[in-house]
Amino acid sequence: MTFNSFIPPQRTLMGPGPSDVSPRVLNALSRPTVGHLDPTFIGMMDEVKQLLQYVFQTKNTFTIALSAPGSAGMEACFVNLVEAKDKVIVCRNGVFGQRMLENVTRIGATPVVVDCPWGEAVDVAKVEQALIEHPDAKFLAFVHAETSTGALSDAKSLCALAKAHQCLTIVDAVTSLGGVELRVDDWQIDAIYSGSQKCLSCVPGLSPISFSEQAISVINHRETPIQSWFLDQSLVVNYWSGEGKRAYHHTAPVNSLYALHESLVMLHEEGIENSWQRHKQMHEQLAAGLAELGLEFIVPANERLPQLNTVKIPEGVDDAAVRNYLLAHYNLEIGAGLGDLAGKAWRIGLMGYAARNENVALCLAALKDALTRFAK
Amino acid sequence: MTFNSFIPPQRTLMGPGPSDVSPRVLNALSRPTVGHLDPTFIGMMDEVKQLLQYVFQTKNTFTIALSAPGSAGMEACFVNLVEAKDKVIVCRNGVFGQRMLENVTRIGATPVVVDCPWGEAVDVAKVEQALIEHPDAKFLAFVHAETSTGALSDAKSLCALAKAHQCLTIVDAVTSLGGVELRVDDWQIDAIYSGSQKCLSCVPGLSPISFSEQAISVINHRETPIQSWFLDQSLVVNYWSGEGKRAYHHTAPVNSLYALHESLVMLHEEGIENSWQRHKQMHEQLAAGLAELGLEFIVPANERLPQLNTVKIPEGVDDAAVRNYLLAHYNLEIGAGLGDLAGKAWRIGLMGYAARNENVALCLAALKDALTRFAK
Repeated sequence: MTFNSFIPPQRTLMGPGPSDVSPRVLNALSRPTVGHLDPTFIGMMDEVKQLLQYVFQTKNTFTIALSAPGSAGMEACFVNLVEAKDKVIVCRNGVFGQRMLENVTRIGATPVVVDCPWGEAVDVAKVEQALIEHPDAKFLAFVHAETSTGALSDAKSLCALAKAHQCLTIVDAVTSLGGVELRVDDWQIDAIYSGSQKCLSCVPGLSPISFSEQAISVINHRETPIQSWFLDQSLVVNYWSGEGKRAYHHTAPVNSLYALHESLVMLHEEGIENSWQRHKQMHEQLAAGLAELGLEFIVPANERLPQLNTVKIPEGVDDAAVRNYLLAHYNLEIGAGLGDLAGKAWRIGLMGYAARNENVALCLAALKDALTRFAK
Repeated sequence: MTFNSFIPPQRTLMGPGPSDVSPRVLNALSRPTVGHLDPTFIGMMDEVKQLLQYVFQTKNTFTIALSAPGSAGMEACFVNLVEAKDKVIVCRNGVFGQRMLENVTRIGATPVVVDCPWGEAVDVAKVEQALIEHPDAKFLAFVHAETSTGALSDAKSLCALAKAHQCLTIVDAVTSLGGVELRVDDWQIDAIYSGSQKCLSCVPGLSPISFSEQAISVINHRETPIQSWFLDQSLVVNYWSGEGKRAYHHTAPVNSLYALHESLVMLHEEGIENSWQRHKQMHEQLAAGLAELGLEFIVPANERLPQLNTVKIPEGVDDAAVRNYLLAHYNLEIGAGLGDLAGKAWRIGLMGYAARNENVALCLAALKDALTRFAK
């Protein structure tokens, strides 16, 4: 059997992630590998921490990049904070709220599910009701930007409510970080995780996470041990800590962290508010064009994610045929629907480096062509 | 605050890993990111599976690369296979045997520890005794190549013993895979994990794993659910499966998998037996040179890992001063001692792309210089 080097095509990535990666980031990725305890690398990791604090808008000391994808970041938040004895209010308005529930269930904790329609934001009034009905709930968990539907929830109001009811918050910011306003400290978020491959426009495989002082205190006062060794953040912190000697935990993914560092340097150069604004502008351009093509959004206007535009597949149009055509003829990837929206919607991402004029123009032109070809 | 791009120095990596990465692999790493469900990427993943089967010398259908480092691969083996009701014989002759024990304990299973001196292979007779004394043990777990000490254990004999006692085997091949003889099917290994950054000479961050049919059957007949969602291989298999539609589990680390693919293509070009032989030859060259320098091995001659040479730090020589000098003056990294061997030993790696004549020559010349400078 013969195996050859893999030379991937040059795609434009406008699905739900991974998003387009800047050549600067790919270049950083391929720099020579150094040891994970090399002094130069440790200096870079300190900068990654500072830059993550900047993009999360937090002073949390525990702000690191987990050496695994966003779904491991989600699990790290739940398994470190939640014990079997705890009650957790979980908001479910898409696939990732469902995954949060799965995490709570596997821990053996008691979930209280607040169900909201797919394609809409989490209903703040419903959450308030749940908080009132369950004064013994210890955590409120919700997804800021639901990647499966394109809905943006009001994290600020949800966290304020949670705090008013003495609840800690666990927030999924996989798709929101860098793409929409997010202020961990101002909004009093206790545990938050994201992914490298969405609006940070880095390669997939890392999960930025941040824990508040209160979250750290909860971890330090657990009654039961954390089952996972790999995700036990009380061990991981000794490797990422800037104070004193680094303790070996696992071998850090050195090159992926080069890439994350570079993507964060780029975001810092642009300014986080400017990045939010750019995503908003690109979304407005795209939305105007989609309207001209007669495509309708799934999500109500005031609850839409600028970085993830979910539109109904027009009656009679073949979902897979259109996506395959875009890929084959334009090297353009847009996303299929996920879960309840499979076969019913497309997800058009404008994340990070992909939120550019040229991408909007290409996407609209290619979609116009495809819709003409594959209309009934 | 200003942040600049990180330009790492060009090191020669001769520690316990990460090892030197070939320019071919770094080049593959930086190729344009495609979607994790892109048809071209799925084709490449199928090749990664086939190539991993080749390097593991197995026909196991469940042979994949986990999207996280080797320590997550270890945890994946334990949490998928072992339940709280199970008894596990754990061999401990270094840091990673200790970590296996930690995994067993966190699951709540009953460990039987077979302690062997650090710097020696696992004692086969002791293991046989434990198997006789504990006929109810379900698993035997051991480290093939102890990265903390440089000792190679007799995996073939240990697995044969385990099978004779109706035990399944869980084997750590983080440092052994690609560097010494390893035959998963012939030796009847049930669950095995490795790391990308040792003798495969890929960047760190991925963990190749493989489960036998019997291991899969054990997973399918568990009485209790697996706590981890991220490491639940019954879900992961639906993404890596070649049959039918790929089910989304998490976003694969696309670029790291390009690199792993390239490193495996290189290993396939060389031939796995040739790779084992190369490691042996380079080890013999290095060992001869170390003897000339008066450096003594920790591990008895017939139990030494060719790819990880652990030598005693001579009396009166300053450990850190020597390592810092090698790094500063030669850009050469060798490893410090770990655990019981901290401050007492150096670990000199000859892993994968690092197992080359030029590396051996550099290391011996640089060590000679350093030992002269920092001798009493």
